[in-house]
Amino acid sequence: MAHIKLPEGVPGILGPMAFSPATAKPLNELAEILLRAANSLTQGERELIATYVSSENDCYFCQNAHGGAAAHWLGGNEELVQQIKRDFESSPVSDKLKALLAIAGKVQKGGKQVAEADIARARQNGASDKEIHDTVLISAAFCMYNRYVDGLATWAPADPAVYRENGQRLVEQGYVHSTDHLAAKAGD
Amino acid sequence: MAHIKLPEGVPGILGPMAFSPATAKPLNELAEILLRAANSLTQGERELIATYVSSENDCYFCQNAHGGAAAHWLGGNEELVQQIKRDFESSPVSDKLKALLAIAGKVQKGGKQVAEADIARARQNGASDKEIHDTVLISAAFCMYNRYVDGLATWAPADPAVYRENGQRLVEQGYVHSTDHLAAKAGD
Repeated sequence: MAHIKLPEGVPGILGPMAFSPATAKPLNELAEILLRAANSLTQGERELIATYVSSENDCYFCQNAHGGAAAHWLGGNEELVQQIKRDFESSPVSDKLKALLAIAGKVQKGGKQVAEADIARARQNGASDKEIHDTVLISAAFCMYNRYVDGLATWAPADPAVYRENGQRLVEQGYVHSTDHLAAKAGD
Repeated sequence: MAHIKLPEGVPGILGPMAFSPATAKPLNELAEILLRAANSLTQGERELIATYVSSENDCYFCQNAHGGAAAHWLGGNEELVQQIKRDFESSPVSDKLKALLAIAGKVQKGGKQVAEADIARARQNGASDKEIHDTVLISAAFCMYNRYVDGLATWAPADPAVYRENGQRLVEQGYVHSTDHLAAKAGD
């Protein structure tokens, strides 16, 4: 049971977002810009970074919700999503994305963990200042979203089908409208 | 030196915010709602929670910037701010605020660290669902802001006077306009 009274049957971050629409607005706008706005990193790459950080933070809901979105952007490649969480260094993604995932992993542990060598590796593999900036902020933001979800002990569905469906909805509709279907459901 | 090219002489989070105005907007809106909007927790109490979490994350800029704002709200009581960082349990704040600081400290370590007993203690001392929610989200949000500031190795002034002046500006102008003086400076 969640630590505070949240709407029943509403999964993960959507419960606290329904509880507090005022804070939900900037939280969703931030996710929309970081994960979906025009960027030299693809949406799939950015969702993989979000998924990896959520996995490192052991947040079941977020790693599956964003893993679901990542898999959709990657043509349904759920195995790649699992591989990124298990050991991204041996996965078939680009050397640039590996370097950015390494930075994201450092940020997850703490901002000061990011070393000059991590930045140098990213640059050697072609990462721009904006890509490094966005990777740091995606990782930092998921250290927030993950704590918000688990710090309130929200409910996470166990059924993988829920995250496939949710991932498809995120790909189609984005984050700013992520709670619209709840409003529609409440109005049934 | 910062990990990416940021405007020179701009302290802490204001550097990356000037680098990326699109993400600065929701980041500032979130801080404005969490720390300044109408709430049963005072602005001073909320800035103390932000300061404590930033101190636990060892973020020099954020603990001093928000410590400066907290001290201003508390009538200039800088000693209380230091005491909260050192050992809030023995400080002269309310039992409710101590219970909320304890929750914030758990969230800083990880969302799953928050135990039923932490929530029960807060409720016994009169905390509402909204106060618990806001405490969890303030702590989670500062786990983001702190990582953003340190993950990019931003510059933090050492002079305490800077944080007193900055704290006063935050109290007077809030977060949404926190980068306005930089734009004004650039236009000199």
